[in-house]
Amino acid sequence: MREFDLVVRGGTVVTAAQTMDCDVGIVDGKVAALMAGLPPGRAEVDATGRLVLPGGVEAHCHIEQKSSFGLMTSDDFYSATVSAAFGGNTTVLPFAAQHRGQSLLEVVEDYERRAGEKAVIDYSYHLIVSDPTEAVLNDELPALIRRGLTSFKVYTTYDLLKLDDYQILEVLAVARREGALVMVHAENHEMIRWLTERLLARGHVAPRYHGIGHSRLAEGEATSRVISLSELLDVPLLVVHVSCRHATEAIRDAQTRGLRIYGETCPQYLFLTLEDLDRAGMDGAMYCCSPPPRDAESQAAIWNGLQNGTFQVFSSDHAPYAFDETAKLAAGPDAPFHKIANGLPGIELRMPLLFSEGVRKGRIDLQRFVELTSTNAARLYGLFPRKGTIAIGGDADLAIWEPEKRVEVQWELLHDRVGYTPYAGRQLTGWPTTVVNRGRVVVDGGRLLAERGSGRFVPRGSSSFAR
Amino acid sequence: MREFDLVVRGGTVVTAAQTMDCDVGIVDGKVAALMAGLPPGRAEVDATGRLVLPGGVEAHCHIEQKSSFGLMTSDDFYSATVSAAFGGNTTVLPFAAQHRGQSLLEVVEDYERRAGEKAVIDYSYHLIVSDPTEAVLNDELPALIRRGLTSFKVYTTYDLLKLDDYQILEVLAVARREGALVMVHAENHEMIRWLTERLLARGHVAPRYHGIGHSRLAEGEATSRVISLSELLDVPLLVVHVSCRHATEAIRDAQTRGLRIYGETCPQYLFLTLEDLDRAGMDGAMYCCSPPPRDAESQAAIWNGLQNGTFQVFSSDHAPYAFDETAKLAAGPDAPFHKIANGLPGIELRMPLLFSEGVRKGRIDLQRFVELTSTNAARLYGLFPRKGTIAIGGDADLAIWEPEKRVEVQWELLHDRVGYTPYAGRQLTGWPTTVVNRGRVVVDGGRLLAERGSGRFVPRGSSSFAR
Amino acid sequence: MREFDLVVRGGTVVTAAQTMDCDVGIVDGKVAALMAGLPPGRAEVDATGRLVLPGGVEAHCHIEQKSSFGLMTSDDFYSATVSAAFGGNTTVLPFAAQHRGQSLLEVVEDYERRAGEKAVIDYSYHLIVSDPTEAVLNDELPALIRRGLTSFKVYTTYDLLKLDDYQILEVLAVARREGALVMVHAENHEMIRWLTERLLARGHVAPRYHGIGHSRLAEGEATSRVISLSELLDVPLLVVHVSCRHATEAIRDAQTRGLRIYGETCPQYLFLTLEDLDRAGMDGAMYCCSPPPRDAESQAAIWNGLQNGTFQVFSSDHAPYAFDETAKLAAGPDAPFHKIANGLPGIELRMPLLFSEGVRKGRIDLQRFVELTSTNAARLYGLFPRKGTIAIGGDADLAIWEPEKRVEVQWELLHDRVGYTPYAGRQLTGWPTTVVNRGRVVVDGGRLLAERGSGRFVPRGSSSFAR
Amino acid sequence: MREFDLVVRGGTVVTAAQTMDCDVGIVDGKVAALMAGLPPGRAEVDATGRLVLPGGVEAHCHIEQKSSFGLMTSDDFYSATVSAAFGGNTTVLPFAAQHRGQSLLEVVEDYERRAGEKAVIDYSYHLIVSDPTEAVLNDELPALIRRGLTSFKVYTTYDLLKLDDYQILEVLAVARREGALVMVHAENHEMIRWLTERLLARGHVAPRYHGIGHSRLAEGEATSRVISLSELLDVPLLVVHVSCRHATEAIRDAQTRGLRIYGETCPQYLFLTLEDLDRAGMDGAMYCCSPPPRDAESQAAIWNGLQNGTFQVFSSDHAPYAFDETAKLAAGPDAPFHKIANGLPGIELRMPLLFSEGVRKGRIDLQRFVELTSTNAARLYGLFPRKGTIAIGGDADLAIWEPEKRVEVQWELLHDRVGYTPYAGRQLTGWPTTVVNRGRVVVDGGRLLAERGSGRFVPRGSSSFAR
Ligand SMILES: [Zn+2]
Ligand SMILES: [Zn+2]
Ligand SMILES: [Zn+2]
Ligand SMILES: [Zn+2]
Ligand SMILES: [Zn+2]
Ligand SMILES: [Zn+2]
Ligand SMILES: [Zn+2]
Ligand SMILES: [Zn+2]
Repeated sequence: MREFDLVVRGGTVVTAAQTMDCDVGIVDGKVAALMAGLPPGRAEVDATGRLVLPGGVEAHCHIEQKSSFGLMTSDDFYSATVSAAFGGNTTVLPFAAQHRGQSLLEVVEDYERRAGEKAVIDYSYHLIVSDPTEAVLNDELPALIRRGLTSFKVYTTYDLLKLDDYQILEVLAVARREGALVMVHAENHEMIRWLTERLLARGHVAPRYHGIGHSRLAEGEATSRVISLSELLDVPLLVVHVSCRHATEAIRDAQTRGLRIYGETCPQYLFLTLEDLDRAGMDGAMYCCSPPPRDAESQAAIWNGLQNGTFQVFSSDHAPYAFDETAKLAAGPDAPFHKIANGLPGIELRMPLLFSEGVRKGRIDLQRFVELTSTNAARLYGLFPRKGTIAIGGDADLAIWEPEKRVEVQWELLHDRVGYTPYAGRQLTGWPTTVVNRGRVVVDGGRLLAERGSGRFVPRGSSSFAR
Repeated sequence: MREFDLVVRGGTVVTAAQTMDCDVGIVDGKVAALMAGLPPGRAEVDATGRLVLPGGVEAHCHIEQKSSFGLMTSDDFYSATVSAAFGGNTTVLPFAAQHRGQSLLEVVEDYERRAGEKAVIDYSYHLIVSDPTEAVLNDELPALIRRGLTSFKVYTTYDLLKLDDYQILEVLAVARREGALVMVHAENHEMIRWLTERLLARGHVAPRYHGIGHSRLAEGEATSRVISLSELLDVPLLVVHVSCRHATEAIRDAQTRGLRIYGETCPQYLFLTLEDLDRAGMDGAMYCCSPPPRDAESQAAIWNGLQNGTFQVFSSDHAPYAFDETAKLAAGPDAPFHKIANGLPGIELRMPLLFSEGVRKGRIDLQRFVELTSTNAARLYGLFPRKGTIAIGGDADLAIWEPEKRVEVQWELLHDRVGYTPYAGRQLTGWPTTVVNRGRVVVDGGRLLAERGSGRFVPRGSSSFAR
Repeated sequence: MREFDLVVRGGTVVTAAQTMDCDVGIVDGKVAALMAGLPPGRAEVDATGRLVLPGGVEAHCHIEQKSSFGLMTSDDFYSATVSAAFGGNTTVLPFAAQHRGQSLLEVVEDYERRAGEKAVIDYSYHLIVSDPTEAVLNDELPALIRRGLTSFKVYTTYDLLKLDDYQILEVLAVARREGALVMVHAENHEMIRWLTERLLARGHVAPRYHGIGHSRLAEGEATSRVISLSELLDVPLLVVHVSCRHATEAIRDAQTRGLRIYGETCPQYLFLTLEDLDRAGMDGAMYCCSPPPRDAESQAAIWNGLQNGTFQVFSSDHAPYAFDETAKLAAGPDAPFHKIANGLPGIELRMPLLFSEGVRKGRIDLQRFVELTSTNAARLYGLFPRKGTIAIGGDADLAIWEPEKRVEVQWELLHDRVGYTPYAGRQLTGWPTTVVNRGRVVVDGGRLLAERGSGRFVPRGSSSFAR
Repeated sequence: MREFDLVVRGGTVVTAAQTMDCDVGIVDGKVAALMAGLPPGRAEVDATGRLVLPGGVEAHCHIEQKSSFGLMTSDDFYSATVSAAFGGNTTVLPFAAQHRGQSLLEVVEDYERRAGEKAVIDYSYHLIVSDPTEAVLNDELPALIRRGLTSFKVYTTYDLLKLDDYQILEVLAVARREGALVMVHAENHEMIRWLTERLLARGHVAPRYHGIGHSRLAEGEATSRVISLSELLDVPLLVVHVSCRHATEAIRDAQTRGLRIYGETCPQYLFLTLEDLDRAGMDGAMYCCSPPPRDAESQAAIWNGLQNGTFQVFSSDHAPYAFDETAKLAAGPDAPFHKIANGLPGIELRMPLLFSEGVRKGRIDLQRFVELTSTNAARLYGLFPRKGTIAIGGDADLAIWEPEKRVEVQWELLHDRVGYTPYAGRQLTGWPTTVVNRGRVVVDGGRLLAERGSGRFVPRGSSSFAR
């Protein structure tokens, strides 16, 4: 038996199917052995009293991406992946975002150049398709799928991103033919536009009106609609960042009928509400994202959906915009709500928040936690079984958690460059204190051990859920 | 590193969460190592080209049980466990059935005596509670739960078994207080009785009228009702052997609302229909079970429920009655339908049928197959993580499948004593050719290698699903 | 043209289909002409500025009935029909209640004797079937149906009234064969019993615990169940006194699926809540009825059901028990909740409450008001078109309303003998100030003009809704 | 008592609420008396043995309308109203259709000029809004509403008619503010376009592919969507010509939730199927309409919706295009399906079909028939109580039916100019043999008695259903 490069010793190994006390032996970045009492490795991590989980697969985040408004996110591939790693992630799936008129191939090349030199953990991209020309549909998307970029996001809203139903059908048809997965940001653009114009006309410009304009009816409607589009073509589809009961019910109903509809939700829909958008002065701007946080009833509906299997994946939708004139307030210190950049940070806290409020409070068990934060994302996006679990032959991507560690959230503890966290002041229990990516100890004891650019691009196969 | 008692080498190991190519090293009946290239063990199984799955946990079967009609099943603990083992199972959970007036403690002792000397694989019992006296509720059930019998079945029908709603509430209250799980046979007794009397009065006595009398409305009604009882006490509950859309929808709806309602289905609801009860002569009697097989629409609803997660567990409900005067025809060669013993065999074919029709035909993947046939049963019934998966420290319970093996079903190939199989003539692809229980090779190459009485009673903890 | 016995002149005539300004000419107790400018009649009622509606058909009330506890209602056929008449009713449908062991034929004779000599308006009976013997099912019910008693009520709860599912099926089968309509009091007896025993064991005896013990889950369950029984036999069925969302949804769902399921609700579910049962001292006893008043969410569900057509009929369930030792407190001044007589008065206020809160506040229109309080009851119970509308040839049963009349409810204004009203202090707008039954002016200007015993028994045909 | 201009004697008068035997006395075009044994009128109709119903209100028909393709309907205001009258109608509500760029005021003037000189029965218009400019929204619609045109139809499909969601919200907001009712043709344009393009690309051009391209998913989706738009603004809305279960369920669900959503269906969805589009040669073109006829399951769903109240109104959607080169085949004798004019005739058979198949076969009763064909249309569209019932003071609009008359449908019996009927060969029972509009006998004994241009424009008030 060959010597192990690294042995993670004495921990409790957790996967989506089980929990077991054993060591993890790693060779060449892969898990090579699961066994109690492995012989000493070249290096060792003492996991005694800790939980050894699959590293998180952060499946929805915006990194070094220029928004359709022209704003750049505060985090680049370095800071975002460092922050992700400190939060227990070993893989990130940000977006390579096409702006209209752009070639998707060139977009991807641009992202690869930037990511390759900065990322400290592994990564791939979802493609944002905002301009589904013939060339994009017939040539670029198939080519990129062959290169392992097997998922695309489309929008039903935002002036410069939204596709109409015909275009969505076109994209879905490509996905069906080529075995890719389509993710949809589902909000009815015209409903939001109509409400927004009337709110502005009445002088309702404060951040909280962002939450009024983005009505849950708009989200429910668009969710039902894209499900119908998916049903027409018999092709799977994922609805991202679900915030409310209406959309949750539409997804659940589709699943009940046997459709391959999947759902994602995010921390902001469990832990924030419209009241956060109504904080004093412009502070509400820090909580503006789309869909917006809702209310207690919505939070209960989202928790229920996490428990009963309606949602497959829990992502951060990390969209980091500084609370200053470079980003959130680019339209001025009194920017009306519709000119405030949409998005909030969360890449580092996604898993600690769910661990503390979900696992520790008994709402979900460890298996479901692993599924929601890692395994299902890997399966959905064609990374499985290389990522998303702890399996012989798979990448040695591990997040080693101290389940009793207590942390009071402050932005200063985090590693992003956004300058604030929406979760400041929360008391969390449980934290990933050691993170291993492909056998490399990336984070340990609060220190970053990985070098800039040491993350790798991971080509992806077809979604396991597009059966 | 200590020498392995047994190494299963070269196979593809499958759990509910993953698939990986590695060897399995076994020491003292436990899985001790998962690794490629393990050193030679004291014994070896060559699993090259085969799938190494967790041994099946057969969670619903009637073994050496006297029915409330007074008929004994054809299989005793020897033949049933041999047949189960040949079908890929390593654990069976038959029933210890209380008849009215009996002490549950004595019932269990009687079963233990019989099982202990005959079983070739591991076992525990669910308790059938037909007489919930004060003594049973307050003393016997708590005592038996402490001895590891943590699940009970109650009936809403059968004259000598049925509990009324008050009694079911009493049993549910004990389950809630003691952390046990209640399983329910849900059919409205009075609806069935009313229909049966009228069918008989009109001279409709043939086996097919069993399927008419046991209306799907009766099953749907009772399912909804026991869900309400569960909701009243906020206690989990499993509906066994679901056969139709009505009951499936009631269960799904409860899950959607966040209730901890679980569902089981069986091969007869996927592969048989009422037309089988209508076969020539009395042949239909071989297909009489309760609930009865339905129709193609019901089959589709059941498949859908297996795919979308409505059902957690797939069991045989093996209830072996010989097609002769000792059992099925005990009431004579022209027995009217209500005097035909209810039940049909399936313990050996449960997994091959689902593997062939489910996995091989693309309806479910291997992970879901493992969940439905092993992992979830182990979790539901407090056997986890000792049983139900392949994990370091867990019992070395393995079913090693040849995924391409083609078999035409004939009763002569099987190992039960029933004398017929409802699935004769079917072509199946995939078969478990080696079965290992606690590190013992129980079945290999068509031969039984385990001794009578070598199976062990497994005390169980609380259900993982009674969170 | 023959002279009219009575002309109601100058009013606005309202039926379930229309509103029209015209006179009503009456001959021999029948409506003989609808026309503006009728010639003078032998008698005249000036209806100028008033609404001429069909007299109310009070389809659910308990009059001079001995309860299964042995208590007699405070109202006899005189006081109850006087009170009903002052509330705008011209027909009442109380119950002829069989106690176990009684012959239904004798029960009916007894009621007829008492009603005949006292009633001031027209009447018929629903039969309460508590003992469905062969004789009752095969002989008495068919005989009574032929005598025009075409509706029966059965109970799923109360020790001395409840039928089991088999018995309900027997009664439904008779109804199907003979063209009668079955009404069901739907609450799960065993759930209530189980809760009640535990509440009492914990010393929770105050009136409010009546509302806890009669859980809405018990009502929802029994409602779903009796719908299944109805579906099995394909026979119409009416669920009486629906109080909560659960039962409303079950009824609505059945209607959506095309079943002939009908629903009734009552004032107490629109205007009272569980908080009324929690009034100081024993005052809550005045509000105890089954099902009990619920909460604001339930009230909204019930209003919604009145608006969208889920409910066909709005009845009082007048069950008058004095708040003293003869009735409500027969078990003592501190009677535990399960010994408090169930029921509350409402026969006189049923229509004024719905008129004021429903019509005047814009929740329903006049057509719907007429449907809910008169037309549908007449159609449901086989009185149509003789009763329930204003039609040529039909009985001249009219309630002439002053739509602007303001009344503050006090028991002293009412004409029952109960001694209290649950609605004391409410401000109502609209009151029926003249009431005509078969052409006789029964009430006018606050005075009773009809003689004791002048009401008549009305034989009924088959339900129009049992199509 | 003044002499009657006309007495309809000896019939059975039916309204949505009742059935009564009496004469109808008419003065100045209004119903003046309902009474048995009226004195002789200046004119008399003997209705002995016949049913006197409110004249039909045909609420959805296309008359002398140029389609957005530029085709003129075969019927002008003369032939269409003659045909309508022979079918028992006394009021028609065709569309005044704006084409893009047109002023709605001018459109209406144009229609009024043409209708005024030709119509033989009363009429008003719904406005088709295809170009909701500021002028239309702010000036023209309010002005036309004040002139009594209180309903508009909008389209979600057809290139030259469809509004986007924003525009629909604009129209709904006007309706809400001004008390008008919006009708929607709900089919998802992009789904239809996508399918159509692919069908054509594969050479699937036959008429039956019209039915494939107009998928029921497209109808269900658009129906759900416009319900969401209505819910956002809390404004009532009617979905016209519902053809399938999907849309029916969406409407029913909205009604269950308490929304003011109304539904219309048409004969073609009860009596035709996709198989009719598949008739030999180009005959299928005669059955092309949108939405297209579906299948037996859809027909059952539509019947169910008529029975349980989901649909309020039953209209013909008469859209008469000759089966020749002037209309159906304007794009050639082998016109591909997307170039075949959409629509089929039905104005004369709407009521006889429903009477024969609905009333005579026991699916609905006479009250429901009257509601669906007359009363509800009058209430929905602000004609009530002047039209839609038989009430003192209301217009004397009567259709006098021979309930036993048997007719075999042939186009030659009808009075339209279309040249074919989709219902040829059907055996119907029941026919309206005398029709009276505002006291004028328009049709009697198979002869037209009304003069060209004798119909009148009826200004309408607000919808009774926009409560
Ligand atoms: Zn998004
Ligand atoms: Zn995002
Ligand atoms: Zn069973
Ligand atoms: Zn069983
Ligand atoms: Zn009752
Ligand atoms: Zn009652
Ligand atoms: Zn249309
Ligand atoms: Zn149309």
